[in-house]
Amino acid sequence: MHTLKVNVERMKKDFESLSQIGSTGNGGINRPSLSENHLLAREWFRKKVTGDGFEFYMDNAGNHFARLLKDPQAPSLLMGSHLDSVPQGGRFDGALGVVAAYEALRSIRDNRVDIPFNIEVVDFTDEEGTLVGMLGSRALSGTLPLEDLTNPRGGRHLLEESLTRAGLNENSILSARKNPGSLLAYIELHIEQGPRIRNAKADIGIVTAFVGIRSFTLKYVGRADHAGTTPMDARLDAGLGLSAFMLAAHKEVLDGFPDCVINFGQVTYSPGAYNIVPGSAEAMLEFRAPNNKLLDRLERVLLDLAKKIGKTYGLDFTYLRYGRFAPTPCSKNIQDLFALVCNALGLRYVHLTSGAGHDAMSLANICPVGMIFIPSSGSSHSPTEFALWDDCVNGANALLNSVINLKDIIGSKVNAHI
Amino acid sequence: MHTLKVNVERMKKDFESLSQIGSTGNGGINRPSLSENHLLAREWFRKKVTGDGFEFYMDNAGNHFARLLKDPQAPSLLMGSHLDSVPQGGRFDGALGVVAAYEALRSIRDNRVDIPFNIEVVDFTDEEGTLVGMLGSRALSGTLPLEDLTNPRGGRHLLEESLTRAGLNENSILSARKNPGSLLAYIELHIEQGPRIRNAKADIGIVTAFVGIRSFTLKYVGRADHAGTTPMDARLDAGLGLSAFMLAAHKEVLDGFPDCVINFGQVTYSPGAYNIVPGSAEAMLEFRAPNNKLLDRLERVLLDLAKKIGKTYGLDFTYLRYGRFAPTPCSKNIQDLFALVCNALGLRYVHLTSGAGHDAMSLANICPVGMIFIPSSGSSHSPTEFALWDDCVNGANALLNSVINLKDIIGSKVNAHI
Repeated sequence: MHTLKVNVERMKKDFESLSQIGSTGNGGINRPSLSENHLLAREWFRKKVTGDGFEFYMDNAGNHFARLLKDPQAPSLLMGSHLDSVPQGGRFDGALGVVAAYEALRSIRDNRVDIPFNIEVVDFTDEEGTLVGMLGSRALSGTLPLEDLTNPRGGRHLLEESLTRAGLNENSILSARKNPGSLLAYIELHIEQGPRIRNAKADIGIVTAFVGIRSFTLKYVGRADHAGTTPMDARLDAGLGLSAFMLAAHKEVLDGFPDCVINFGQVTYSPGAYNIVPGSAEAMLEFRAPNNKLLDRLERVLLDLAKKIGKTYGLDFTYLRYGRFAPTPCSKNIQDLFALVCNALGLRYVHLTSGAGHDAMSLANICPVGMIFIPSSGSSHSPTEFALWDDCVNGANALLNSVINLKDIIGSKVNAHI
Repeated sequence: MHTLKVNVERMKKDFESLSQIGSTGNGGINRPSLSENHLLAREWFRKKVTGDGFEFYMDNAGNHFARLLKDPQAPSLLMGSHLDSVPQGGRFDGALGVVAAYEALRSIRDNRVDIPFNIEVVDFTDEEGTLVGMLGSRALSGTLPLEDLTNPRGGRHLLEESLTRAGLNENSILSARKNPGSLLAYIELHIEQGPRIRNAKADIGIVTAFVGIRSFTLKYVGRADHAGTTPMDARLDAGLGLSAFMLAAHKEVLDGFPDCVINFGQVTYSPGAYNIVPGSAEAMLEFRAPNNKLLDRLERVLLDLAKKIGKTYGLDFTYLRYGRFAPTPCSKNIQDLFALVCNALGLRYVHLTSGAGHDAMSLANICPVGMIFIPSSGSSHSPTEFALWDDCVNGANALLNSVINLKDIIGSKVNAHI
């Protein structure tokens, strides 16, 4: 296998420029989806694409694309990631995947590699879910339910405000669906956000599947009493019940669901004053499991536990279901391609599942997908998130050579072979 | 003892008008201190006072006064309460005390009762502590520490915004101190916000003392990790530690501090997203005890417990001290006066401590204070807060006749006798 290398200096310069946009000054970035900072990052990408002479377009879900056109009738190999971050997040999550994919695109053009299909680099809208979660990739793959827009994770007000800021139209988002035949495959480079590649002493992680994710808002309702005059044993304290549930739920998952994780990301009491017993308490809950059977069982156990604890504390319990992502396998053929490419590049690889959700999960509904992880350290989704530059370059080279060798494997009859 | 009665219809009309301002449509009102709704209620009072031909003035802390002047050199008997509410609060708390005091003032003038001192009715600023807590009464009595303005309970931004809305100047608040010699006494009518008068089958509660109150913000700091890729047992979840502390603290107070109460009124996680383990978790804590010894012991026990639990969960623990109100006795002579008046009116009374903080606590620093409670039901600090109209009238009559008979007890040498 003949291998090509990316332009390391050019890619590094891009990554460092991008890391300045929304920088929090401590290695992190703050680019919640469609915030001012995020829009600046997208503008940076758009200007780069047009400045370099590639075709640029944006779809109705706000996804940004750079295209190297071979033939308007041919399907496209799509690669990329996202430029948004969680609030106060890290600079590698998402951004590295866009920068590396764009660098691969330029290297292919610079080296005049003959590719029998179109290549597109994408910057997806709202991967992290500040607003909806994988908004752009789900809209593109036709798997975004209307209720996720009418009842979004981050609240209606934030979604409306953010779409307006980005000049997007809510009504047209659901029309962003791409024709499945137009996509050959989707591949993405991302940091692992966990310790497994490093523990395996490997350079590259080849993702076999994505775990499933479900998220809920839970609400306990008791009674808002005066916190000075109401005896302790005469209260219906919603905060107390929620605390008891959170501890019990953690213990349940640790003891009974070793392959699963659970998180309570935010809690809000109402009315919310020093001198009022919380009449209601809401929590954002998210849990993940490697297969549907475990997801179903965990959901049942958690909701039963929440109801039982509500009864113990004399509280009403209700919940709303938010995003739901099914466990998703990656293309076996693309995994094999990644392995061949790693061998040719002298990179050690390991197969693993992804505990994080990625846009590739959405794309898997309309085309074969593959995902390459590189080792990372620090706390992902925080400013301490870190990846060694050599690992970033290894990942970009694996991505580039996968695009180049995809053509050798698939020839002209593309879909059937992947 | 000759007794006088208030004008029941006039007082009822006032109370009902006031209940419409900031009404939440379910019996409650929403008039957080210096909010638009609260300012409308204050304007209603000001217009009534000037329309009825009483002297009106506002001091530098925004307290509103109606004055019936006997002699500019004579001291004033002050009575009243506050027109602000907690968020989504009840219509009796505070408002009844202002309406009844104003009705007493009008009854005295209507009946040409000869009183040898000035009488003033006050509407205090921010009793409930949306901003600072007993802001107006503490400023007036010279007991408001500067740090309560620089580091207010409700946050600096809200305080600045609210003062601007009300046309108040932060720098002048501390200059609102009244000359202690100018006040003869302070008396206030308020709903009990608890079950004790009713349980004692009495009509009136005569307050002997106010419990002490201390409030803190507590903060646990762990690490903001990716909630999908970080194993459950490798996290430093600040929300989990806070939940464990809240449950343990409740149990500690229930088991070991039967005369005390504790409340966690609000909780906030940061960064605050579904897919990020909470890196920090903050809580508003308030606790109350009938004497300083118990307050000190409870504070020590709670802070030690919080540190111990932080250590168990691998979290840093810090705290900030907010408002602090010492337990405060009421004037024995005024209690006796209330008892005499109740007997003359045929009202059954019971002596009790106040579990709630009231502006009278501040005034006790500069003059003798007395407080009359009437029975109430429902949840105080909520729209279900309720008092029977007959009980409201009983309270107003007790207040009126206390003012009238204060003069018989004290004659011209006022302070020494109370």
